[in-house]
Amino acid sequence: MTVARVELADVRPDPASYLGLAAYLILTLFENVGRAVAAAPTTEAKTALSSVASPLLAAHEGMVAELRARGHEPATAMDLYSADIDQFQRRTQGQDWYEIVITCYVTSGFLIDFFDALAAGLPDDLSARVTALLEVDAGEAVLVAELRAAIDANPRLASRLAMWGRRLVGDTMLVARGALAVGGQSVAEERIEPVFTELIASHTRRMDALGLTA
Amino acid sequence: MTVARVELADVRPDPASYLGLAAYLILTLFENVGRAVAAAPTTEAKTALSSVASPLLAAHEGMVAELRARGHEPATAMDLYSADIDQFQRRTQGQDWYEIVITCYVTSGFLIDFFDALAAGLPDDLSARVTALLEVDAGEAVLVAELRAAIDANPRLASRLAMWGRRLVGDTMLVARGALAVGGQSVAEERIEPVFTELIASHTRRMDALGLTA
Repeated sequence: MTVARVELADVRPDPASYLGLAAYLILTLFENVGRAVAAAPTTEAKTALSSVASPLLAAHEGMVAELRARGHEPATAMDLYSADIDQFQRRTQGQDWYEIVITCYVTSGFLIDFFDALAAGLPDDLSARVTALLEVDAGEAVLVAELRAAIDANPRLASRLAMWGRRLVGDTMLVARGALAVGGQSVAEERIEPVFTELIASHTRRMDALGLTA
Repeated sequence: MTVARVELADVRPDPASYLGLAAYLILTLFENVGRAVAAAPTTEAKTALSSVASPLLAAHEGMVAELRARGHEPATAMDLYSADIDQFQRRTQGQDWYEIVITCYVTSGFLIDFFDALAAGLPDDLSARVTALLEVDAGEAVLVAELRAAIDANPRLASRLAMWGRRLVGDTMLVARGALAVGGQSVAEERIEPVFTELIASHTRRMDALGLTA
């Protein structure tokens, strides 16, 4: 996310706001993985997906620890954003295991890229620690393998899941746009444009990896 | 679990069977925690409960690694027990957040005690590693705090949750009894009796900690 990090470097989000929003959002991404584990059609898929959960939990716990270290009550900092994120979660639940897994893949991929870019504007020491916490894409290969296997075994899934992916990216972009206002600053539209262009290019690569059109 | 470890030390469960059953069961306990996180009524409860998930995931991953190290396909080893454990999970789901959390507390507490005791009969090196993996009760204090707060805020919950706890312990004991047959050996009833006496005493202490009658 080179372009996005450069363009967003002077947004300077308020640390407590950034951490509260990111911590709650990551907890939501974790919940989605939990649902994917529970709904998995095979034991192999279940155990593979469960490995995606650990790095998300570690990232959440890291953000909570940063809030505490700065004297903020974590739940209070997160609660400012819980209603919006809960609504996002309801809209992106998915109706079956395939849609749940696509949700995990698309929303985690996009939002972790975005929060990683936005972290460029945090104070130096915090920025480095948050960036390290957000290195959670280890699970992506697992999700891709599970999804490709499902799509290969049932090609009719492809068009339904491609459509679901498009709906998801719309809702996900709204969350990212909302997060830009977290610092209280307004960000000029000409700076936002290249950021989203880059995020969407990554999204397209993610869908390509599944053999789906973005 | 001193008595249980001594009484079960000569059961000598087959390592692959033990690991397959324990790995799948712990994944199920993790799923239950995931549901408790998702259904939590407050952000504070949500983030507190999520901390219970990490040690369960680590225990599951450790068991899977042990299976792999012994040349077993983890999913195949787990699949021998998935139907029984899935049925146990369906019976113990709970209808609301309170019942889900009691399920996490009662079934994890009882079954981790039991599998820890049964690990005494595994080959020495494996036994020590499995025992270390099963040191996951760090989350218990969090669950107790959440439940006590809920019961204090709403005393009418107490009788419903006490009843739910009794039902759970019955289903949980059946899982433990089934696990005793995993080695292919039959275990004499007079050895089993003191094991369950000790497990039930621990269960009673757990319910006491909530102010509930076992």
